[in-house]
Amino acid sequence: MATPSTGRPRASGTSPTGLGTRADILAAGAALFCTDGFASTSTHALARAAGVRQASLYHYFSGKDAVLLELLLTTVQPSLDVAARLLTADESAEARLWALCFSDAQLLASGDDNIGSLYLLPEISGESFRPFHERRSELETTYRTLVVACGVPAESAPVGAQLVLALVENVILQRRRGATPGSTTWEQIADAALRVLDIDSERRAQARRDGARLIADGD
Amino acid sequence: MATPSTGRPRASGTSPTGLGTRADILAAGAALFCTDGFASTSTHALARAAGVRQASLYHYFSGKDAVLLELLLTTVQPSLDVAARLLTADESAEARLWALCFSDAQLLASGDDNIGSLYLLPEISGESFRPFHERRSELETTYRTLVVACGVPAESAPVGAQLVLALVENVILQRRRGATPGSTTWEQIADAALRVLDIDSERRAQARRDGARLIADGD
Repeated sequence: MATPSTGRPRASGTSPTGLGTRADILAAGAALFCTDGFASTSTHALARAAGVRQASLYHYFSGKDAVLLELLLTTVQPSLDVAARLLTADESAEARLWALCFSDAQLLASGDDNIGSLYLLPEISGESFRPFHERRSELETTYRTLVVACGVPAESAPVGAQLVLALVENVILQRRRGATPGSTTWEQIADAALRVLDIDSERRAQARRDGARLIADGD
Repeated sequence: MATPSTGRPRASGTSPTGLGTRADILAAGAALFCTDGFASTSTHALARAAGVRQASLYHYFSGKDAVLLELLLTTVQPSLDVAARLLTADESAEARLWALCFSDAQLLASGDDNIGSLYLLPEISGESFRPFHERRSELETTYRTLVVACGVPAESAPVGAQLVLALVENVILQRRRGATPGSTTWEQIADAALRVLDIDSERRAQARRDGARLIADGD
């Protein structure tokens, strides 16, 4: 059921999706930035696609940069939430890393639009995107912590974490190439992450079982 | 030394780089597409940055799509050339795969501009970019062939090749994040590729020695 907008008046009545004006603007931004491109999308086109007046858009966001920033944050914040839970879980480090990889690959594969593809926009090197880069850096730190906990020497952990993240974030390129990575792929990525860290096959098999349970418990 | 342009007249004399008008247009395209973005770059801006008239640009390229296509091909063709040489080399499959990963990572890390970042442009899904997708697909086939030759069962080879390519192509995201991946990183990627395929440590060590020699011989 559509709920009435609580912000500025819309161009045409209530939110067509029932999710509210703010969510509609974000959904329109994801669709337009990922298909037409960020530079090619005007705030006018963004407002029209969201079914709101430009004035309403500016009520919620300072401009299209702010819409992009919020979209980028949605690709990281849920991972940080999962990571926070996993860092204190009782399972082995290998199982927790397996679960984090699985969950991150799932996140990047989810949604109608390949929001992760916006990571490569030249525009996001600007200062206004600092909150995204900080969160992304936090996530990388979590990976490093788990990689060290898996027994990788501290001096090799940055490279180890980077290689693991390379496997996870490849979901973005796979989607760009038309694939729709599903749960089998998320498992393959999580499995491969443990192989990259040279964890032996017995510990990997155990980590996979425990990691899958961690994922199931979190759902 | 600057050589006189052999095509249409330039806006201002000979090629400032001495590489010729065509190369100047490609260099300008790489710089503008990777910094300002593809959609934001007009053929007018492209011509101006290359130091040629718009008419000269159209003498060499049908438009900015054609410039982008040629840039994309430069990220794949040298790899295909290396791959063709490696497929028939006498070394083990593991050594040849190691060398291909090293060489591809090096290619993606080279040049002033991160041309690989253009892989994620929504524009390149169009028909006019088919030659790039075909070459990229050929390269993936070469990876699969080597993965099978490493002893990976044929049914697992597509996933294996994809995971290996994920490690290699991560150079693109690393560069976007401001890193400048050098030879140590290319080696780490090639080493990780063999671990992802679950090749044992003895064969990996041998492959690394032989692979490094293949690279040295090819230079």
